[in-house]
Amino acid sequence: MVAQLSDDERKAALAKLAGWEYDAKRDAISRSFKFSDFTEAFAFMTRVALHAEKADHHPEWFNVYNRVDIVLTTHDAGENGGLSQRDVDLAQIIERCA
Amino acid sequence: MVAQLSDDERKAALAKLAGWEYDAKRDAISRSFKFSDFTEAFAFMTRVALHAEKADHHPEWFNVYNRVDIVLTTHDAGENGGLSQRDVDLAQIIERCA
Repeated sequence: MVAQLSDDERKAALAKLAGWEYDAKRDAISRSFKFSDFTEAFAFMTRVALHAEKADHHPEWFNVYNRVDIVLTTHDAGENGGLSQRDVDLAQIIERCA
Repeated sequence: MVAQLSDDERKAALAKLAGWEYDAKRDAISRSFKFSDFTEAFAFMTRVALHAEKADHHPEWFNVYNRVDIVLTTHDAGENGGLSQRDVDLAQIIERCA
């Protein structure tokens, strides 16, 4: 099982992740990205996909045309899934891909 | 503006699209696909993305790990968007990609 972030750890991590919001209900973080068109949005998704597969940690994401909504949580963190360091690491990678 | 499908046209199209469901509220069609893992799911999405971009008609889709949920509707069909022949054509392409 992966360790769930404590409240303090989560707050410290989110302070460094501008634009990401915390969903307390799911213990997840999310961000919406807008690109100039579908090609740019899907190119971004492809970059993220390659990193996610390498890290063996994958996003939940929705795409319509130039918009990509991403939710990150760790299904095997804590009892019912929750935010872990793996989500914070992936969010940082996603920021670099955007 | 793109022509919205009539009830008869929609029924005839759906009869040939096994596994696709009609959402009357959105006048959209949807299907969920499951693959063996994320790599297979994203490979499928990449194939669909290239065809969608070529056709200049894009899906609304959600992915988590090996699952891909797709909704097709045409934003400039009819008054408020709705199902058009472009959605039926894309659904057929998606079936070939899966």
